Amino acid sequence: MGSSFGQLFRITTFGESHGGGVGVVIDGCPPRISLGEADIQRELDRRRPGQSAIVSSRQEADRCEILSGVFEGATLGTPIAILVRNEDARPEDYRAIKETFRPSHADFTYEAKYGVRNWQGGGRASARETIGRVAAGAVARQVLAALHPSFEIVTYVTHVYDITASIDPETVTRTEVEANAVRCPDEAAAEKILRAIEQARADGDSLGGIIECAIRGAPPGWGEPVFDKLEADLAKAMLSLPATKAFEVGSGFAAATMKGSEHNDPFEIREGRVRTKTNRSGGVQGGISNGETIVFRVAFKPPATIAREQQTVTAAKEETSLTARGRHDPCVLPRAVPIVEAMTALVLCDHALRQKAIAPSP
Amino acid sequence: MGSSFGQLFRITTFGESHGGGVGVVIDGCPPRISLGEADIQRELDRRRPGQSAIVSSRQEADRCEILSGVFEGATLGTPIAILVRNEDARPEDYRAIKETFRPSHADFTYEAKYGVRNWQGGGRASARETIGRVAAGAVARQVLAALHPSFEIVTYVTHVYDITASIDPETVTRTEVEANAVRCPDEAAAEKILRAIEQARADGDSLGGIIECAIRGAPPGWGEPVFDKLEADLAKAMLSLPATKAFEVGSGFAAATMKGSEHNDPFEIREGRVRTKTNRSGGVQGGISNGETIVFRVAFKPPATIAREQQTVTAAKEETSLTARGRHDPCVLPRAVPIVEAMTALVLCDHALRQKAIAPSP
Amino acid sequence: MGSSFGQLFRITTFGESHGGGVGVVIDGCPPRISLGEADIQRELDRRRPGQSAIVSSRQEADRCEILSGVFEGATLGTPIAILVRNEDARPEDYRAIKETFRPSHADFTYEAKYGVRNWQGGGRASARETIGRVAAGAVARQVLAALHPSFEIVTYVTHVYDITASIDPETVTRTEVEANAVRCPDEAAAEKILRAIEQARADGDSLGGIIECAIRGAPPGWGEPVFDKLEADLAKAMLSLPATKAFEVGSGFAAATMKGSEHNDPFEIREGRVRTKTNRSGGVQGGISNGETIVFRVAFKPPATIAREQQTVTAAKEETSLTARGRHDPCVLPRAVPIVEAMTALVLCDHALRQKAIAPSP
Amino acid sequence: MGSSFGQLFRITTFGESHGGGVGVVIDGCPPRISLGEADIQRELDRRRPGQSAIVSSRQEADRCEILSGVFEGATLGTPIAILVRNEDARPEDYRAIKETFRPSHADFTYEAKYGVRNWQGGGRASARETIGRVAAGAVARQVLAALHPSFEIVTYVTHVYDITASIDPETVTRTEVEANAVRCPDEAAAEKILRAIEQARADGDSLGGIIECAIRGAPPGWGEPVFDKLEADLAKAMLSLPATKAFEVGSGFAAATMKGSEHNDPFEIREGRVRTKTNRSGGVQGGISNGETIVFRVAFKPPATIAREQQTVTAAKEETSLTARGRHDPCVLPRAVPIVEAMTALVLCDHALRQKAIAPSP
Repeated sequence: MGSSFGQLFRITTFGESHGGGVGVVIDGCPPRISLGEADIQRELDRRRPGQSAIVSSRQEADRCEILSGVFEGATLGTPIAILVRNEDARPEDYRAIKETFRPSHADFTYEAKYGVRNWQGGGRASARETIGRVAAGAVARQVLAALHPSFEIVTYVTHVYDITASIDPETVTRTEVEANAVRCPDEAAAEKILRAIEQARADGDSLGGIIECAIRGAPPGWGEPVFDKLEADLAKAMLSLPATKAFEVGSGFAAATMKGSEHNDPFEIREGRVRTKTNRSGGVQGGISNGETIVFRVAFKPPATIAREQQTVTAAKEETSLTARGRHDPCVLPRAVPIVEAMTALVLCDHALRQKAIAPSP
Repeated sequence: MGSSFGQLFRITTFGESHGGGVGVVIDGCPPRISLGEADIQRELDRRRPGQSAIVSSRQEADRCEILSGVFEGATLGTPIAILVRNEDARPEDYRAIKETFRPSHADFTYEAKYGVRNWQGGGRASARETIGRVAAGAVARQVLAALHPSFEIVTYVTHVYDITASIDPETVTRTEVEANAVRCPDEAAAEKILRAIEQARADGDSLGGIIECAIRGAPPGWGEPVFDKLEADLAKAMLSLPATKAFEVGSGFAAATMKGSEHNDPFEIREGRVRTKTNRSGGVQGGISNGETIVFRVAFKPPATIAREQQTVTAAKEETSLTARGRHDPCVLPRAVPIVEAMTALVLCDHALRQKAIAPSP
Repeated sequence: MGSSFGQLFRITTFGESHGGGVGVVIDGCPPRISLGEADIQRELDRRRPGQSAIVSSRQEADRCEILSGVFEGATLGTPIAILVRNEDARPEDYRAIKETFRPSHADFTYEAKYGVRNWQGGGRASARETIGRVAAGAVARQVLAALHPSFEIVTYVTHVYDITASIDPETVTRTEVEANAVRCPDEAAAEKILRAIEQARADGDSLGGIIECAIRGAPPGWGEPVFDKLEADLAKAMLSLPATKAFEVGSGFAAATMKGSEHNDPFEIREGRVRTKTNRSGGVQGGISNGETIVFRVAFKPPATIAREQQTVTAAKEETSLTARGRHDPCVLPRAVPIVEAMTALVLCDHALRQKAIAPSP
Repeated sequence: MGSSFGQLFRITTFGESHGGGVGVVIDGCPPRISLGEADIQRELDRRRPGQSAIVSSRQEADRCEILSGVFEGATLGTPIAILVRNEDARPEDYRAIKETFRPSHADFTYEAKYGVRNWQGGGRASARETIGRVAAGAVARQVLAALHPSFEIVTYVTHVYDITASIDPETVTRTEVEANAVRCPDEAAAEKILRAIEQARADGDSLGGIIECAIRGAPPGWGEPVFDKLEADLAKAMLSLPATKAFEVGSGFAAATMKGSEHNDPFEIREGRVRTKTNRSGGVQGGISNGETIVFRVAFKPPATIAREQQTVTAAKEETSLTARGRHDPCVLPRAVPIVEAMTALVLCDHALRQKAIAPSP
């Protein structure tokens, strides 16, 4: 249990990094939404390895196939199953670590939990698992576009190691994000990040960082107190991603160092609508969207796989050392951008449908 | 929808701050667990107002009544319903704000979502809603104690406004936490925090802060990838609490500024068990507990209710100003400690049962 | 687990026959639905004992109290908790059977499952548990009335022991049902059933029977293939009731003895709508309502409690005999009518909201 | 929504009769259960067309592929995805009925619900959808065999049209069931049924019937009152199958014509265990298994597709007539046996795990 997400727009992902393939089944997608494999492939292409010099050189086409739920270019209202075959499998790369737990990976905990694990390439704990999420997120995006044409999500890298970018969540565009390989729409910072990642690769090391997400055009009223608050579901979505360690919405941790008189967002009337002058709330109040831009940030740790000798132990409880080999990302942030975006679309689509179920018919 | 939490140990809370009462129904509690009203009342007493000079002076006895599911001092395996009556209701305190949205409260968003709201005292968005959580958490604690005698949760304040405490999550005890009104087991910091809160109250202002939680004695193997990872469910639990803005586990946001060679936790064998030398992972790897202490932090914003004039608007979309009255906490951190602890117990109890369902019988 | 029902209009019931009380929490009720305690009390009064000579003489006022979720006569969109106190508790009536399993009751199975049971009056297995269902059903009825004014449910007794009534599900009214104590709108049959029940009581025996339910005015399109088909959820709802042994929709078991040429319902156009000439489908095709009257039947076994000596065993595994005492119904059918109706309203309300979530906005 | 089933052993099926394929994802399967494609194929072969003269002559190999969740012959504890490609697609067979609603099929209701449908071969409403159920049922069977070696399910045809077989649920074996093409382990009745089905095919007609299922070796204690009673979940499972109209457990509808003194099952001690002398309860009391054989029956209507002219209407609301063509089963009962069995295994496996979660560790 644990591979399903969402209440009304509900996805179930499957697949290990090695084996038949990875994918997702989406149950609860409304009918008559325009959808084709190209809509999904576009997002998968954003996350796959081999896109640029700073990500893993693995060559995986990651071609998706829609197995069900779509007919003549539109959704049927029935489950949408999407499959991506595993192609570039080299299990022999992993044979060395069959009996050895890689530090800060999930080898030991999977073994402890299940008493068994697919040691080929990380198995279910591989980032390859996120393919199903990205595919489902692309479908959620289509639903949101149909129901709320002005809705948009823009996601970008704001921070890598010791470099911080400056980006305005109210105005940044997806085109700006996609303008460089780092997916950081502050060109000067992006250039520095690029060099830092190249240096980390050269050093056999890896780097952490922060991704920010801006959700614009969500109407007031999304989010379901008291447990399924919008930020609670976003926090869960983000902390369910591999390598994430932290989440904050609006003012985030900075709120801890503030006074109420500094933090509160005064209301005003702008263009006939109730608006806040500031947005320290981050677009949510009491767990419900307030019509302002929803802004959150997610911290990613540096990838655990580094080309340096590390101390570890074997499944037989003997101490040993390990030096990773293979083709890995020295920094996951650029490829994590479409993954964060996909999870965001899933949360928002689910809440849009949940609100639709109880809202008065016009 | 949205008032239920947990998969196997599943709670549903109910209640507004004014009206018949607040409470919870717990479905899925194992049978034959020792439980009485005193076990629950103890935790409720830790969260209620009026305990000390620095919290709200409201006098609410918050006496709980177990309505079902317990017989002759033990659980029956049937739903446990717990009710706390609302007693100290002064709706007239709120009549002034019936038509006015309080800044950074949920008045506007509830109105936007539901088209109606109980304007008396914040209704469902009141912190009084957490009574059901605390009561359920006390039951979860009993279950965990029965199944895993060495399991323990210690929660404490580490930060208020500009004051930071120094506390070791590996050794801090609950007794140390309860030794002062602030629930900060660093006496020097606690003293400063106390004065800062008193000053904030005198200023008609409020303060944010950070709570840390240490979970010790959880066996390796709890957590359900890929969506119900232990840290994902903890993040959701925390962000579902009123006034929270951020969550981090282990290294948290600091991981974003680190290299892999600095962040990885080497494995070693200690006392015959697989252990990590450091604990930047925060006790979870790949979403599953690894047997180390699980450490996370939650940021709380300063309470929105302050005794200062603030700009706002009315439901009729007219701009106005508002000065809060009533008996409010200038800082929620001390009273939030048992609430964070309750949510933590709920998450861990749920995952303990989920693991029990699939683990091999001994 | 197992005390919740419904996906969007989700109820959780609680309570044993003896103890603080019984009740329900409803999560997911749309806001701004007219609701007061009188709406609920009306239905509770239909199910409670002591209404007529043929039902249990226990005097339970069964007064409901709405604890939350309702404000100024309308729902808030927040959880609605409803409590009915246990008043007429005579646990000493049950002390004799504390150690003895009553034949065809749930004493043995609860003991086997939970290793403990509340032996006072059947505990959670008591029909008193259905109070929460009836209260929630009354709320569901209000929601359906608001969303679909022409929707109606009529439920009635068609069969007791060897007496069969003749009733047309297309035209029978609730007034006709309530016209006699048996709730059988065929006066001649009702008279015979009344005498049969009186005779059974005199004999210290009990009688089984069948209840039929006609749902009129449901639009085409309710029901969620492939598992949450409308008839599947109705079947589950009915078999979850105490003392039920069978369910059939439309042609039911008679379909097993028919040919396709006899069973198919031809389509025609009537008053501009697609209609079926016959209704052997029972208003559902492929698990989805087709706009015709939904008709189903439920079989109830004779109550297990009879005033005759029966062979049984003790918890200590000794054979013994038992003669029941107390105030019991010799036939549950009349009081089961509002219970069947409540479960029906819950299923239909849930599916109405589920369809609302995916249907195109007009 | 509606394509998932089960709480802990949770399946999600997908697929239309035409398109990429059909299949299932199983989330919550315990790890280290022996499983290979052969275990699944065996059950799929029992349900596929073309097995004998009395079922559809369509030639579908229905080869399954396990995409994930299994490694080196055992389950991993991660989601198990199983895919069966659609091969023998002849959409042109269905083009004639693209605009015409087939009587007693789901064409009209799918159109009403979703505003769109895959008209090729019944789409999601095709019996081909049950492939995912049968595949998942084969996995559930492996889990049950591992956890409870003496557990067994035997399912068989007891009735077709006017022919009734005589079979003892306590002793019938799966080998006897598989001994003839009808899957009716009363040879004389099987012979008559065979001829009746051949006659129906010759007449262009179809026949209904009844399947009975005997579950032996379930321990006392499975089932989760009050809504997830064992018989309630079985009823839902059965009524979710295509073409089913009725369900009864134990005495079933016959209970309606009985007195309590005739119906009650006296307890006795047999071989040191609490047993009932009779089994009118059908192995469940209060929604929980009592250790006796669980016996239930399901009624199937005659297939709606018959080679006779029938009145119907078009999507454009014009009256017309229709004569079906293609390769259809004149009676679904023989092929429905493994499908009923699969759903039964799913329900029982789910409840076995649910009980495991709350039962005391030995």
